Amino acid sequence: MKLIIAIVQDQDASGLIDDLTEKKYGVTKLASTGGFLKSGNTTLLIGVEDDKVDEVIKIIEDNCKTREITTSLLTVNMPGDTYIPYPIDVKVGGATLFILDVEQYKKI
Amino acid sequence: MKLIIAIVQDQDASGLIDDLTEKKYGVTKLASTGGFLKSGNTTLLIGVEDDKVDEVIKIIEDNCKTREITTSLLTVNMPGDTYIPYPIDVKVGGATLFILDVEQYKKI
Amino acid sequence: MKLIIAIVQDQDASGLIDDLTEKKYGVTKLASTGGFLKSGNTTLLIGVEDDKVDEVIKIIEDNCKTREITTSLLTVNMPGDTYIPYPIDVKVGGATLFILDVEQYKKI
Ligand code: NI
Ligand code: NI
Ligand code: NI
Repeated sequence: MKLIIAIVQDQDASGLIDDLTEKKYGVTKLASTGGFLKSGNTTLLIGVEDDKVDEVIKIIEDNCKTREITTSLLTVNMPGDTYIPYPIDVKVGGATLFILDVEQYKKI
Repeated sequence: MKLIIAIVQDQDASGLIDDLTEKKYGVTKLASTGGFLKSGNTTLLIGVEDDKVDEVIKIIEDNCKTREITTSLLTVNMPGDTYIPYPIDVKVGGATLFILDVEQYKKI
Repeated sequence: MKLIIAIVQDQDASGLIDDLTEKKYGVTKLASTGGFLKSGNTTLLIGVEDDKVDEVIKIIEDNCKTREITTSLLTVNMPGDTYIPYPIDVKVGGATLFILDVEQYKKI
């Protein structure tokens, strides 16, 4: 048995939890803030049989891979104070995984 | 030294923390939500000497074992809109434990 | 790779996170309450290369060591209900560290 501690971006967490739950993986969501990833992040505890670790990593990659999105910043155009949307590319996603060996696993 | 990560139901958490604290076990409570157990749950970190693991598991079992309780659902009785309490059996409790080996333990 | 789970006092957390981040250590802050340390505490997850563990422990010691501070209690002086500040020494700080071996570390 392994315990995967996954630190993912808030916006990727619910999709990931859905996909893991559909495949019957147990997930616990901890509240977390700042750190490994710049914006708000979520820490998940995922208990996994040894031979399922790669499948779970794949599910995390599918949900959390770093990708570029185009968003727009509103910038002030001084004369007349009109705001102009200014498109920018932002990197979102990413995850940090710590995979630990579980000495004993018990359901009560 | 072992670290027990215990995911328990919210309603069992404070009784368990009391019992562990009385016996001088160190417990840290993390906020957690959803996942391994259906309703709201709490994740506890419990640091334990190797020869005390079984005693701590016993304390967790005593506080968190799955049991059936009888509760009542209010159901609507259409004519006149009266509500009738309808008794149902619900399973509560349960816990998921990950016991990890601690390579180094340090109090500062 | 090691994972340091550090339970520190709330008041020491932000200084510690600053110092770790300056030195490029990844830190994730989990919300936590009660337990190992009497007052409000914070749990941090710190991923560290094996040969940097001692440096990180040193940074934690510098920020979280137990120290005595003098604070004042307001006590009532019965005749006339005046309050008299009464200086007392209080121990603050302290940390509990669990250092775990990481079987696999992955950035996505
Ligand atoms: Ni295993
Ligand atoms: Ni040990
Ligand atoms: Ni290692």
